[in-house]
Amino acid sequence: MKKSLIALAVMAAAGAASAQSSVTLFGIVDATLQFGRGNVSDRNQLGNSGYNSSRLGFRGTEDLGGGMSASFWLEAGVNNDNGSGQATNTNNQASGNPIAGIAGGQGLTFNRRSTVSLAGNWGELRLGRDYTPHFWNLTVFDPFGTNGVGTTATLNTGFTGVTTVRASNSIGYFLPRNLGGFYGQVQYYMGENADPSAGGVEDDGSGLSLRVGFATGPFNVAFAYGKTEFAAGDIKQMNLAGQWDFGMAKLMGQIVRDENGATDADGWLIGALVPVGAGEIRLAYSTYKVDTAAADPKQRKIALGYVHNLSKRTAVYATYAQVKNSGGSAVGLNGAVTAANSSSRGLDIGIRHSF
Amino acid sequence: MKKSLIALAVMAAAGAASAQSSVTLFGIVDATLQFGRGNVSDRNQLGNSGYNSSRLGFRGTEDLGGGMSASFWLEAGVNNDNGSGQATNTNNQASGNPIAGIAGGQGLTFNRRSTVSLAGNWGELRLGRDYTPHFWNLTVFDPFGTNGVGTTATLNTGFTGVTTVRASNSIGYFLPRNLGGFYGQVQYYMGENADPSAGGVEDDGSGLSLRVGFATGPFNVAFAYGKTEFAAGDIKQMNLAGQWDFGMAKLMGQIVRDENGATDADGWLIGALVPVGAGEIRLAYSTYKVDTAAADPKQRKIALGYVHNLSKRTAVYATYAQVKNSGGSAVGLNGAVTAANSSSRGLDIGIRHSF
Amino acid sequence: MKKSLIALAVMAAAGAASAQSSVTLFGIVDATLQFGRGNVSDRNQLGNSGYNSSRLGFRGTEDLGGGMSASFWLEAGVNNDNGSGQATNTNNQASGNPIAGIAGGQGLTFNRRSTVSLAGNWGELRLGRDYTPHFWNLTVFDPFGTNGVGTTATLNTGFTGVTTVRASNSIGYFLPRNLGGFYGQVQYYMGENADPSAGGVEDDGSGLSLRVGFATGPFNVAFAYGKTEFAAGDIKQMNLAGQWDFGMAKLMGQIVRDENGATDADGWLIGALVPVGAGEIRLAYSTYKVDTAAADPKQRKIALGYVHNLSKRTAVYATYAQVKNSGGSAVGLNGAVTAANSSSRGLDIGIRHSF
Repeated sequence: MKKSLIALAVMAAAGAASAQSSVTLFGIVDATLQFGRGNVSDRNQLGNSGYNSSRLGFRGTEDLGGGMSASFWLEAGVNNDNGSGQATNTNNQASGNPIAGIAGGQGLTFNRRSTVSLAGNWGELRLGRDYTPHFWNLTVFDPFGTNGVGTTATLNTGFTGVTTVRASNSIGYFLPRNLGGFYGQVQYYMGENADPSAGGVEDDGSGLSLRVGFATGPFNVAFAYGKTEFAAGDIKQMNLAGQWDFGMAKLMGQIVRDENGATDADGWLIGALVPVGAGEIRLAYSTYKVDTAAADPKQRKIALGYVHNLSKRTAVYATYAQVKNSGGSAVGLNGAVTAANSSSRGLDIGIRHSF
Repeated sequence: MKKSLIALAVMAAAGAASAQSSVTLFGIVDATLQFGRGNVSDRNQLGNSGYNSSRLGFRGTEDLGGGMSASFWLEAGVNNDNGSGQATNTNNQASGNPIAGIAGGQGLTFNRRSTVSLAGNWGELRLGRDYTPHFWNLTVFDPFGTNGVGTTATLNTGFTGVTTVRASNSIGYFLPRNLGGFYGQVQYYMGENADPSAGGVEDDGSGLSLRVGFATGPFNVAFAYGKTEFAAGDIKQMNLAGQWDFGMAKLMGQIVRDENGATDADGWLIGALVPVGAGEIRLAYSTYKVDTAAADPKQRKIALGYVHNLSKRTAVYATYAQVKNSGGSAVGLNGAVTAANSSSRGLDIGIRHSF
Repeated sequence: MKKSLIALAVMAAAGAASAQSSVTLFGIVDATLQFGRGNVSDRNQLGNSGYNSSRLGFRGTEDLGGGMSASFWLEAGVNNDNGSGQATNTNNQASGNPIAGIAGGQGLTFNRRSTVSLAGNWGELRLGRDYTPHFWNLTVFDPFGTNGVGTTATLNTGFTGVTTVRASNSIGYFLPRNLGGFYGQVQYYMGENADPSAGGVEDDGSGLSLRVGFATGPFNVAFAYGKTEFAAGDIKQMNLAGQWDFGMAKLMGQIVRDENGATDADGWLIGALVPVGAGEIRLAYSTYKVDTAAADPKQRKIALGYVHNLSKRTAVYATYAQVKNSGGSAVGLNGAVTAANSSSRGLDIGIRHSF
């Protein structure tokens, strides 16, 4: 006999006792036909997460009384095209990535989030692996949400390394809600090296990041700054982004500045989400340029997409994107390879189902 | 306080709302004492999946209205004798397997199935990692279901490689039910190489497979054909199989033909399931021969087993099998090593518990 | 829409049908700020499991009638500081550990426990990966329960190898309860090598272990003995341990003797748990000495801790420990490195949340 998890409706019927001990199983399975075209080679593949990131997670909250609560969140990325899991990084440094060749042996890790929290009217203290504050603006204010072929050019190059999106060994603090529209968070994360370490790398992989924002009515704007220390040169990420919801369309914009040691990079994005019946049109233009002494590799990217919601949980979607490389850049889309200073085109067609 | 998943009975009580959002946690834990005997070395071990494959899975269906539904299925193989997971393969080629030496580091992957589907009265479209159509006849029409020491000789040699059982990056279509007993499915899967690729391997690991069958009353027969492309030589699998349920016994048979480049292989199986009170006797004879220029390595295998059901979910079982090698073949059972042209014997004794 | 798992209260309401098919999802997320100090190098990190071992598990029991039941238990260790899983060991030998360098690629395995059982009034038969009987006394009768910086010195050195805590491929038998306070278990586990094997290692990793105890009122005492075979020298573990609950304090003690081939080691522990309101003070002194021909490396360790329960499920805690090395020993705490015959200090501050 199979067991079944019950809908929230039954949950409510169970009353206060169960409210104090809810555990939620949740997830997304998003499969994407990906077509990539470049002037060196093309690629067609079944990928995942073209609209939302595929995942399987477990989370829960316990009411401790007096306005206090404890909670946990364990969320694993899933490559549902082939069933493999996704690696995490253990120490915010390259040495915390797995050796090459794991391929189909990569098991599930809680790479997306793995935290325990205490919360009260003073805010939330969160420990574990979590998103970095400096990442949020890149996804919240991008019509393509950092998923699929259409996402911002800023994320094309890996310029900002291991802690671009998440950090392990982090201590985070979140401001309480109900601050009149102000919100914010700060996070410290550790590289966990011996101190002293040979080569002066005891701070490698340690960092500090913060994000502050203001949202009111149709308006939302936020600024973030993060710095990860490395003896070979710190990595810094700054971004200012926001949106205005005009009802018939939601306009979004980002300004991004990154530094990796002595090298700088700049980017920006402008985009829109346009509701159309049960669906939504998505549009964005983004650019990213790395300033090196020799050349300035640059990408300019346009993306156009449509999402059609079959229900709240299930959607079909298509996204087309084109990137133009210059200054020696050779970014290809959806696995295509393109020569320096050439273009690449990509198309995603997919299904997103959440539970 | 521990959370508990509730039985389907409660599910029904929750009415239509929950029917639309059911998520099911399911699994099997099957532990098997395995004894293998050969004339080079013997082996005794605690293995798994001697009767049914051990697994942990999550699946669910959403009613989209109008006869449409969306569903997902994430199912991980579990080596419950030692707690490790099982690797998947990412690209239907040897390079998609993990490097050697992962051993106890092998984590859980959704190697058994990892799919998202849309279904309607027109059938089902399924994307992800799934069984290949050409595999089904080998398990459905084998009294030992491709599990344990008794399973068909066809699967002894690994002759048909990575996509014998499942394929990643697949697009599958299933005929609707209610076609007067006819059933069928077709699947295309991708190797996802660059095009063009060095060495002309851009199609390596891509394949097409189909299965058609007819079932009515006690009778069920199906044919399947699958081909996986490789520059070094395509792999083809064909099989025709069926069963007739006489009530006092269910007779089964298979005819198998495989090709790996220029080399052919042929096999067949005849078997029976005989219900005996709360139990079932299982019998099979199978043979498999590879036709090479130098020699024709061949296995002939007999298997005899009994399954005793303690409940619908729990069974104990025992299976004895013997393989006779000829033509240079040296297949050993349950980890035993036997010299070319020698026999090997194996015994499974186990418990299967499902949830 | 998200699915929610329901509390045991609802479970009961569902009546007998669901009692026969309960599946429980459970876990612990324990995050620990770890500070280590040594005279070579210090280390500060966010770790896990400072009070209880972090885990995610699935377990269930089926009533088979007539006093019989079947059950399963799948429990994975979780490094929630960085989201990675924990490796298991497949064959009770070093070769069953993963290759080096998996780092953030280490996926979830059911390394903590992976078993299927049949039980009746005659006791329980359990197959799979499980704790070794010779481990239990080390954790049950240690105020720090083999977690965190305060745990017994016995576990500092890795002297007893792969099967110290758990064994794979095991067959265990547990005495029934209701034996007037007597309890006991025996376990056989297999290394699963070929027989004969080159080098005479066919028994490597195989072992036998047993534990017997007696508990009545405030008193509990147990003895355990385990032996794992290796051609290079067997590993033996013996321990006698017990506790007396005086109400205002629970006193605990252990005597430990280990052998690894021709080398012996001895240790002992004395400790106490003192309830204080919603909290508990923990104290222990332990020592462990390895007798080698050249020198006798020895650790003496003191540990002091406090656990404050915010609820039954959530606690905050702090533990301080100091180890004194002599005889050439160089054990460091919480990742600190200390020179031979020097001291090391460690501090844990953490949150434990269970579900």
